[in-house]
Amino acid sequence: MSWIDIRSDTVTKPTNEMRKAMYEAEVGDDVYGDDPTVNRLENLAAEMVGKEAALFVPSGTFGNQLALLTHTKRGDEVIVPDSNHIFAHEVGASAVIASVQLRTLEAPEGMPSIEKLKASIRDKDIHYPDTGLICMENAHSSGRVIPLQYLKSVKELAREFSIPVHLDGARIFNAAVALGIKAKEIADTADSVMFCLSKGLAAPVGSILAGSSAFIEKARKGRKLMGGGMRQAGVLAAAGIVALEKMVDRLEEDHENARFLAEMLSEIPGLHIMEDQLDINMVFFKLEYPDPALVVSEMEKAGIKINPPEGDLYRLVTNKDVTKADIQKIAETFKRIVSDNI
Amino acid sequence: MSWIDIRSDTVTKPTNEMRKAMYEAEVGDDVYGDDPTVNRLENLAAEMVGKEAALFVPSGTFGNQLALLTHTKRGDEVIVPDSNHIFAHEVGASAVIASVQLRTLEAPEGMPSIEKLKASIRDKDIHYPDTGLICMENAHSSGRVIPLQYLKSVKELAREFSIPVHLDGARIFNAAVALGIKAKEIADTADSVMFCLSKGLAAPVGSILAGSSAFIEKARKGRKLMGGGMRQAGVLAAAGIVALEKMVDRLEEDHENARFLAEMLSEIPGLHIMEDQLDINMVFFKLEYPDPALVVSEMEKAGIKINPPEGDLYRLVTNKDVTKADIQKIAETFKRIVSDNI
Amino acid sequence: MSWIDIRSDTVTKPTNEMRKAMYEAEVGDDVYGDDPTVNRLENLAAEMVGKEAALFVPSGTFGNQLALLTHTKRGDEVIVPDSNHIFAHEVGASAVIASVQLRTLEAPEGMPSIEKLKASIRDKDIHYPDTGLICMENAHSSGRVIPLQYLKSVKELAREFSIPVHLDGARIFNAAVALGIKAKEIADTADSVMFCLSKGLAAPVGSILAGSSAFIEKARKGRKLMGGGMRQAGVLAAAGIVALEKMVDRLEEDHENARFLAEMLSEIPGLHIMEDQLDINMVFFKLEYPDPALVVSEMEKAGIKINPPEGDLYRLVTNKDVTKADIQKIAETFKRIVSDNI
Amino acid sequence: MSWIDIRSDTVTKPTNEMRKAMYEAEVGDDVYGDDPTVNRLENLAAEMVGKEAALFVPSGTFGNQLALLTHTKRGDEVIVPDSNHIFAHEVGASAVIASVQLRTLEAPEGMPSIEKLKASIRDKDIHYPDTGLICMENAHSSGRVIPLQYLKSVKELAREFSIPVHLDGARIFNAAVALGIKAKEIADTADSVMFCLSKGLAAPVGSILAGSSAFIEKARKGRKLMGGGMRQAGVLAAAGIVALEKMVDRLEEDHENARFLAEMLSEIPGLHIMEDQLDINMVFFKLEYPDPALVVSEMEKAGIKINPPEGDLYRLVTNKDVTKADIQKIAETFKRIVSDNI
Repeated sequence: MSWIDIRSDTVTKPTNEMRKAMYEAEVGDDVYGDDPTVNRLENLAAEMVGKEAALFVPSGTFGNQLALLTHTKRGDEVIVPDSNHIFAHEVGASAVIASVQLRTLEAPEGMPSIEKLKASIRDKDIHYPDTGLICMENAHSSGRVIPLQYLKSVKELAREFSIPVHLDGARIFNAAVALGIKAKEIADTADSVMFCLSKGLAAPVGSILAGSSAFIEKARKGRKLMGGGMRQAGVLAAAGIVALEKMVDRLEEDHENARFLAEMLSEIPGLHIMEDQLDINMVFFKLEYPDPALVVSEMEKAGIKINPPEGDLYRLVTNKDVTKADIQKIAETFKRIVSDNI
Repeated sequence: MSWIDIRSDTVTKPTNEMRKAMYEAEVGDDVYGDDPTVNRLENLAAEMVGKEAALFVPSGTFGNQLALLTHTKRGDEVIVPDSNHIFAHEVGASAVIASVQLRTLEAPEGMPSIEKLKASIRDKDIHYPDTGLICMENAHSSGRVIPLQYLKSVKELAREFSIPVHLDGARIFNAAVALGIKAKEIADTADSVMFCLSKGLAAPVGSILAGSSAFIEKARKGRKLMGGGMRQAGVLAAAGIVALEKMVDRLEEDHENARFLAEMLSEIPGLHIMEDQLDINMVFFKLEYPDPALVVSEMEKAGIKINPPEGDLYRLVTNKDVTKADIQKIAETFKRIVSDNI
Repeated sequence: MSWIDIRSDTVTKPTNEMRKAMYEAEVGDDVYGDDPTVNRLENLAAEMVGKEAALFVPSGTFGNQLALLTHTKRGDEVIVPDSNHIFAHEVGASAVIASVQLRTLEAPEGMPSIEKLKASIRDKDIHYPDTGLICMENAHSSGRVIPLQYLKSVKELAREFSIPVHLDGARIFNAAVALGIKAKEIADTADSVMFCLSKGLAAPVGSILAGSSAFIEKARKGRKLMGGGMRQAGVLAAAGIVALEKMVDRLEEDHENARFLAEMLSEIPGLHIMEDQLDINMVFFKLEYPDPALVVSEMEKAGIKINPPEGDLYRLVTNKDVTKADIQKIAETFKRIVSDNI
Repeated sequence: MSWIDIRSDTVTKPTNEMRKAMYEAEVGDDVYGDDPTVNRLENLAAEMVGKEAALFVPSGTFGNQLALLTHTKRGDEVIVPDSNHIFAHEVGASAVIASVQLRTLEAPEGMPSIEKLKASIRDKDIHYPDTGLICMENAHSSGRVIPLQYLKSVKELAREFSIPVHLDGARIFNAAVALGIKAKEIADTADSVMFCLSKGLAAPVGSILAGSSAFIEKARKGRKLMGGGMRQAGVLAAAGIVALEKMVDRLEEDHENARFLAEMLSEIPGLHIMEDQLDINMVFFKLEYPDPALVVSEMEKAGIKINPPEGDLYRLVTNKDVTKADIQKIAETFKRIVSDNI
């Protein structure tokens, strides 16, 4: 049976063009800087987000934690909304690797007010850590795209206090497509940006950390310390290049599918769509009944993989391996499961 | 000139009885466990908070961070209200020493709802750190005493999830006096408790970490690692014993002085007392005018030391070296400075 | 120009069979455990080293540091010969990530005496960290293969003190081929083993950490924390499977080439082969003249990449992309450079 | 019964003059910088070791680990002889607090050759941590005093590579007395120095970290992070001042007593004095029989506290609470125990 998988966009499989590129990739030992395909990817990636330099890393979590390690000194405080991946989904890594204290701000959509951000920057005092970094995330894990104007205000605030900004842009291209602007306009509001080649862009493995040349030079050594120095990584980079060159524009299709799915699901009694978290390829909803375990297993029987809800919130994620017909099947299956189990 | 110092209760000077006890203290090398006065203090301290064992440490911050180091494994997450000392005033130590991630909950008075606490405990998931500890603080730095019933609910929640609770009881005796109960009733809601012999109790140096025998045995080694193994510490412990035996009951006087001070200050135009933060020996207020720098320097000219406001909030702290007459002088001086500078 | 590259065996390029396997690999999201090719690789790898379970990681450094993180608690001491990769070439990672203290023993060939090892295990004392792990390396970076009997003695010692042993087996198959035994016989002397699919086995990217099921389950979460959770990693695992199935037996050829190269180089006046570091695919030597910078640049002009000496020791590494004819050319070029520059 | 205690010089009890000074000490809150006695001690201490500034800390381990935290960035490598206290007796703290990797050099007397030191400084390479600090110890825990010339050579080497030097001078005054020079001449070979007021100088609690003003300013914040910010620490500082002013010159007496003790013990059959470890107040020896447990318990019955041997090496430490008559009794008791148990 061929599955429909809407647990995440991390499940996307490489395209044939990617596989071909991997097959043919010219490679070298990247620890020696000898891999021409990695070098090509890093140049392309830097350019697409308007930064001087970029570095290929094994995962988004790796790129984010490497950014923390590179921007800060041990004992610094890092301001981050509590709904952001860096705090919520990275296994507590910041205290283990970078030895920094996260100052989490309650902000379910990743946008604490500028006043709140400002109030959370530490004065100089013997009791206080230095505020070493502010982290933002766009598109945000809540399914929201953060407006450019907000990020510009964050940048301005950070400049005022000479604090760098890191952007977790795992889905920066989804944000750019949703905002109808270039990714580099978003990235311009931060000193460093991490984005994923996997997820919606469908490369099998890898993410990018980009920033100034000096920052990336320092990060390259931190990457080695963290065990991310890979050898003939050009085989992965080749797929990454295809991801950046061919897969960005089609993200709009995933977004349309998400809106279409939300529309259809919204007709189901007891199912409540989070209408304001519909900016990208994610659909969030609450479902009054039946029980989540039953829903997940019934969907599975129908050949559809979904995650159980986090708390009471279901999240479905459209992606390039899910067609409009699949969307229809998903919605209908939900409808059937609900009506069968009232 | 003899100063009136209401910056904090940390400024209290040792009593003559303490000085005499220090002078006469029988001492030994505490790293060998040979200091009889330290041993006597630790036994007395354990008994007063109803724990099996206790450990003498150089400061409150030391005791709190040692508790984190002892309860958790690296990479754990520790739940703590964001107004608590452990997060707000300990220089980011938790990420440096214990390598744990703080999960701060916005709670200006240190009492996030039990629902919020419960929601912040992590499920088992490969993306999540383990929740390794919950931290409470009583009396709370906001000047509030946390009701016993709330702490009992926290304990119950923690038991349900098999998570230990640490209580930052730097001012646990202020809390006990305010609640009209024994300190051990408060400490009974936590697995470990730290409290200070300095501050309101007026010992010159030192705090206590108390808990089960196994916990304290482990903490003793952690204390050595953190550089807190002291030698003839009995000279300090002797003062600590006086603090515990003689200074607890008089805390009520500080509380009365605080209420008296608040009452008098409340008559000043433009001065707004935080009425619900008046549980112990602290008075918090906002002052419309004049400028803080002017206020601090005018008070100083009058022989009164106060701290500048944190944000826009002034904090005055009564203590054993401040008499009722001093209180009157403080209030009158404020009144004069405000009226002179309208 | 086509280069002859003997800087390391990390420079090996994937074979056509590997490229084909990558092209055709059936993949899934490995963070969900859904990648059938990764699963197949991990099973095969575990079996080849006789362990219950295995985990695919981005690099050898990653695998070693993950082993430290998984075996120890923070503050433990880890015994490791000072010539081992974990201490010498991993950027100081052990203190940053696992927060463990390395107890390095001077042992240029990775074999401190059992007496010395025993003496370095800590007693219980309040001044001492716990000895949490002993690390060995085979084949050793010095070009030596450590005899099985030595490793068995280490294991026995470790058992006596209930301390686990980790084996950095980056080149375990070189060691096995040199000793004429199965890799699992070597791995049996350790609780966990890391080995590389890249290096002599020529896979483009990746290493394996293997151990008990419980150990690997814990390591899987540590891998996520360290940012090593990759998605459709099956594209890499496919090459790794070819590496394990097809590339192990041919390592003997690299070893022969190394001995052949050493023999020819030994005829050069002023060139001193380290005869007892010739167990695998490495040739170490000292060269009286000419100057290293000149040697490296002259070799490069002749199309041969070598590293400058570390200290005064040159290391050449044979690998699958270097033929016997290349070996001859290398030796002749050295001879010419030396004779031209006397 | 009054004990004779030669386990260590850490067991020394404060003098009456110290007790009086503590009783009368003028104190303030040192976290606010308000304790005049602490300030006086810090000035005196800085002057005695010829540094710009000094900081009072709770213990020698605290001072050493604070030096590591202040000099380095996380991930640095710190060169230290493996017999030094920082590596051998500080519970693995360097990896937990400063997150630095110790590069231990085998050197039982704390004096690796300058060539070996030089060879252990790292080049710039992506595989290498930065060498961030060199640590020396004088007097050395082995009972040896390190010659000034050696330390000058270390300083010169360190300057050449722009690496700071920290001196663990827990017993720097013993070294100075033994060398017949000022402590500041020894301290001049290092950027920072830690020394103890307890131990031979007999203050009950506390050590000093000294260095440049900028270094101490940074260390002051690190001290707060590590929980070493104490309040009315003047009570301890008062004793520390007496220690520095009155107790330094009498150390010569302890050294004489050690030599006298060694002389008498050397007559015992089967007892072998380490003649070259007799520079200060320590006597090291091996004893063929009887069994250590018996020796320790028989000595205890005679009212003499000694530590069991570390490995096979006994260490006796003379100190101000041990008179010449005590020394005679100790030697005679040893003689009796040995002859009774042949």
